[in-house]
Amino acid sequence: MVVNRQIRVATRGNGDVIDITQQVIGEVQTSGLVSGIATLFVAGSTCALTTMEFEPGVVYDLQHLLDQLAPPGADYRHNLRWGDGNGHAHIRHALLGPSLTIPFVEGRLTLGTWQQVVLLDFDNRARSRAVVVQMLGE
Amino acid sequence: MVVNRQIRVATRGNGDVIDITQQVIGEVQTSGLVSGIATLFVAGSTCALTTMEFEPGVVYDLQHLLDQLAPPGADYRHNLRWGDGNGHAHIRHALLGPSLTIPFVEGRLTLGTWQQVVLLDFDNRARSRAVVVQMLGE
Amino acid sequence: MVVNRQIRVATRGNGDVIDITQQVIGEVQTSGLVSGIATLFVAGSTCALTTMEFEPGVVYDLQHLLDQLAPPGADYRHNLRWGDGNGHAHIRHALLGPSLTIPFVEGRLTLGTWQQVVLLDFDNRARSRAVVVQMLGE
Repeated sequence: MVVNRQIRVATRGNGDVIDITQQVIGEVQTSGLVSGIATLFVAGSTCALTTMEFEPGVVYDLQHLLDQLAPPGADYRHNLRWGDGNGHAHIRHALLGPSLTIPFVEGRLTLGTWQQVVLLDFDNRARSRAVVVQMLGE
Repeated sequence: MVVNRQIRVATRGNGDVIDITQQVIGEVQTSGLVSGIATLFVAGSTCALTTMEFEPGVVYDLQHLLDQLAPPGADYRHNLRWGDGNGHAHIRHALLGPSLTIPFVEGRLTLGTWQQVVLLDFDNRARSRAVVVQMLGE
Repeated sequence: MVVNRQIRVATRGNGDVIDITQQVIGEVQTSGLVSGIATLFVAGSTCALTTMEFEPGVVYDLQHLLDQLAPPGADYRHNLRWGDGNGHAHIRHALLGPSLTIPFVEGRLTLGTWQQVVLLDFDNRARSRAVVVQMLGE
């Protein structure tokens, strides 16, 4: 069985990290499925999905690492093309990736206690993002 | 239902980035499935799969970042072992990963308009790669 | 059909890289499934899963890259919060990710010959990790 859902997330962009764990748990609980996998996928090429301990220290540390790896103010060929100034966001997306697949067993996602599902928005402006939650199971 | 397909890709190696979106769309369209997930997986430990806006600027920017992170000409222990000179390709693979899972709904992949599926080949020579497309759904 | 299994892995932490390929192959072989996908997921926010050629040279090269990207001895905001000194482990986790999905066809994972499934433990102490192996297929 396949159950398709979507989570809308309003972000501030600029490296914003948003905890969407409760929304994902809610979709699994109301899916009618008890055992399977939830594939999360975000459309767009300037954002990403991953998991982390969602506390302000780790959020800062991750943003700091990404600012060093792909600084917003550096020269990017992409920026010469469109002039939208978000070249750093595009390469961060390619590095972290748009998808994440999490098993669920007896109706519960197999996340750790200190492990949250997060959407990272690297774009240089506020955005509205759609995270597809595709659940397969029985 | 499970539908298994394979896409062959000829690469030039050396950081080559190849857009395989149309092939993946074709496999979903001919699978007979309308709702589910497509798991893409590339065998090998010197290449990777991700998504990105496939335009020459982002391709250059990503290659430039990877050249800084893991330069082809640096010293790698792997190169001492086999002498094949592709140590940089192995650690780039481990960082970006071999798999990508994309939902499809009503027969269409949930990719964004400016989001392409790409194969990255980090090896130091031209290669023929096989990307498995494993589709599950109904 | 969904088949759920778990692999226990004892690690030494501190960047330990452990080859779990044979355990994953074993779970697929005894699942009763012949075609589908295996989603691997590790609970916790200081470890990760990926694939690589598992030989001491690549292991060293990857550890060296991660030590440069996120050095254990650097200043992290996370460390100010809990005082557990593993801030570097948290951002490495977010970068590499907790999940990996591998197709299997005719009962065999589609891994390359020189491609192993590895668990990386970035925490600053020995840990016991549970890797969920969720198999869907027919």
